[in-house]
Amino acid sequence: MVPSAPCSAPSQQAGFPPQPPPHATAPKSAASVPAPNSQLPTDRSLDVVGIGNAIVDVLIQTEDRFLEDHGLSKGTMALIDETTAQALYATLGPGLETSGGSAANTLAGIAQLGGKAAFIGRVRDDQLGTIFAHDIRSVGARFDTPAAATGPSTARCLILVTPDAQRTMCTYLGASVGLDPGDLDLNLVPQAKVLYLEGYLWDSEAAKQAFLAAAAAMRASGGQVALSLSDAFCVDRHRDSFLELVDGHVDILFANEMEITSLYKADSFEDAAHQVRGRCQVAALTRSEQGSVVLSGDQTLLIEPFRLGPLVDTTGAGDLYAAGFLQGPGRDPARPPPPGLPSRPGRPTPRLTGWGLCRTAPSGAVRHRPPQGLKQGPLGQNPGPQGFRRPIQQQQPQALFRGDAMP
Amino acid sequence: MVPSAPCSAPSQQAGFPPQPPPHATAPKSAASVPAPNSQLPTDRSLDVVGIGNAIVDVLIQTEDRFLEDHGLSKGTMALIDETTAQALYATLGPGLETSGGSAANTLAGIAQLGGKAAFIGRVRDDQLGTIFAHDIRSVGARFDTPAAATGPSTARCLILVTPDAQRTMCTYLGASVGLDPGDLDLNLVPQAKVLYLEGYLWDSEAAKQAFLAAAAAMRASGGQVALSLSDAFCVDRHRDSFLELVDGHVDILFANEMEITSLYKADSFEDAAHQVRGRCQVAALTRSEQGSVVLSGDQTLLIEPFRLGPLVDTTGAGDLYAAGFLQGPGRDPARPPPPGLPSRPGRPTPRLTGWGLCRTAPSGAVRHRPPQGLKQGPLGQNPGPQGFRRPIQQQQPQALFRGDAMP
Repeated sequence: MVPSAPCSAPSQQAGFPPQPPPHATAPKSAASVPAPNSQLPTDRSLDVVGIGNAIVDVLIQTEDRFLEDHGLSKGTMALIDETTAQALYATLGPGLETSGGSAANTLAGIAQLGGKAAFIGRVRDDQLGTIFAHDIRSVGARFDTPAAATGPSTARCLILVTPDAQRTMCTYLGASVGLDPGDLDLNLVPQAKVLYLEGYLWDSEAAKQAFLAAAAAMRASGGQVALSLSDAFCVDRHRDSFLELVDGHVDILFANEMEITSLYKADSFEDAAHQVRGRCQVAALTRSEQGSVVLSGDQTLLIEPFRLGPLVDTTGAGDLYAAGFLQGPGRDPARPPPPGLPSRPGRPTPRLTGWGLCRTAPSGAVRHRPPQGLKQGPLGQNPGPQGFRRPIQQQQPQALFRGDAMP
Repeated sequence: MVPSAPCSAPSQQAGFPPQPPPHATAPKSAASVPAPNSQLPTDRSLDVVGIGNAIVDVLIQTEDRFLEDHGLSKGTMALIDETTAQALYATLGPGLETSGGSAANTLAGIAQLGGKAAFIGRVRDDQLGTIFAHDIRSVGARFDTPAAATGPSTARCLILVTPDAQRTMCTYLGASVGLDPGDLDLNLVPQAKVLYLEGYLWDSEAAKQAFLAAAAAMRASGGQVALSLSDAFCVDRHRDSFLELVDGHVDILFANEMEITSLYKADSFEDAAHQVRGRCQVAALTRSEQGSVVLSGDQTLLIEPFRLGPLVDTTGAGDLYAAGFLQGPGRDPARPPPPGLPSRPGRPTPRLTGWGLCRTAPSGAVRHRPPQGLKQGPLGQNPGPQGFRRPIQQQQPQALFRGDAMP
């Protein structure tokens, strides 16, 4: 009964709409990295607008054996149909339901960090859709996409959390695949400094078209486009599209180690990092317990992990890393942290999970020492296990960004 | 907009059906406490069958100020209608949805501890009802009550968790109030050794009648009836009914300090404990950080709290205390703990909350040293602050129970 990524992998080109000239060349050189706030209109009312699948997560504890028995690849996301979702759910233990979705998690995190955020995604007008709409609005994000009155129910993601805190996801996309350009308020996109997109959208042709229309609107207005590669299997399904997208249409790329090595079919993380360098303005590459590496032109920033005690569940960790990266306090050191966030790092008080986590200090989102945490080192071919850990000098991270979005 | 227990307080007598003679006298004397396993048929296939409201909890973090602004009394439960529920929800932050309900929590805990449990309660055939039915079955409990095809939606409880880990509840009873004797499989009740009932059922006349029919069936079969008083305001609404019920129809009573003092309009916990002594076979009285006190005849057992580190959320703590009390390993010291439970107390690994908590060591549910934790002391009038802490001798707790349900 196993859902091993049954989604077909369309090999056609993505069909990108015409782009404005400043971003048309690839790879870009380090010299093209602009100074902060140099080009963006200052009257944009939103920090980030995101497009993604509107999903309610069902978090369920399980054992490694369950994944093996059902042929699930740990740490990845598999698409499943409703029948499979029901059959799998029936074999699983009790769940915790919480609003999720990759880009939605990031936008919720940005809003909780005090940023002005809007999310575009489609739910059905059912109980789970009501929960999703409540939750994302309740954290302060705009969410105006009308709920579908007919068709599949709101998307659900069965998230299997194993004792090592890793999460393995089985997603029924439901109503979220109905997102199309007609759902987009294209007037909304240029109001934001950054358009944030999740790679998962590529699994739906209609959603992909919505993505491309939004990206075109954003680039035409001079804003930035950020993309999360989402999942190694998703990258594998859409590699050609993603390669073209990264080269010609993305300013800020988020990927974890598995995703970036999948994208370039690389032998190692170092190889993949070497290949992506310069192909977009900034590439932020997460490496779980090894922290993350940020590449921009010929610069390399090494960000050490922020250890919070025993891991419980890593669901959404990458999404909140992106939130912290785009909205972190480093973007304006003079700005105090939002209410409810600790003023300095420390062992947080354990709290509930889900979007009600504004006190839990997710790694990327509430890292309050970005200058101290950012370290620069040479990222050459196979720098060895110590290569990413050698601090050379403090980095003024503001210099990396065209806008004021900052790690 | 505040829901301060708007439920009317019916003052009529509960209208108990005729009861079999062994339980008809009240108060009962200590001499009536039978030896373990002395009367129960040995062929009962269930340990506990419970009746309660089938509810999906919506756990939301908030601040004390929110409770004050909305006139909510911390630590209690207020009934609200659907309109109020929607209005309150709209003002609150993001939630975590998880199956709940007082008796359902207890039955889920019993099943997770390896007991044979069945739950009776009504949901609607909607998404939340599907979640509830999945969750309670997935922990191994029987749940056969048919979902309502029409009428109000599945019950929801907005649980407001404040930074001190206290929970304050606002419940929309929805479909759960439709439970009536027609829903009961009365053949199921005598299959269990214990019938467990939540006091919240008294807020619905139909559910109360279902309760009474089940209690009569249980007592006729020679089984035990356990009752949780549920909530101090609920006790206040139904005091006369509850007093009659405890005196004549309940074998095992669960109450916290607020509830038992409310029941007897007592000036102190000690006064309330003095009044309840002997009125039922066993009274298990919880006192938050002060542990609990178990009264049976002239015996007093003092159970120290089992400290697990920083408190996050006390939702369901009393329900799981009851689960541990009815199903704890003490009932059969030779029986190994169920899979997934630690073999000895210790600092647990933090895990997800909700019913997926089989590794989190809830205080009552996984207390693995009952003999060491049980202490006997004189409970007289106002024994003073040290009165409940003085160990006198080890107690063989099996002697307290007619069946083999044991703390």
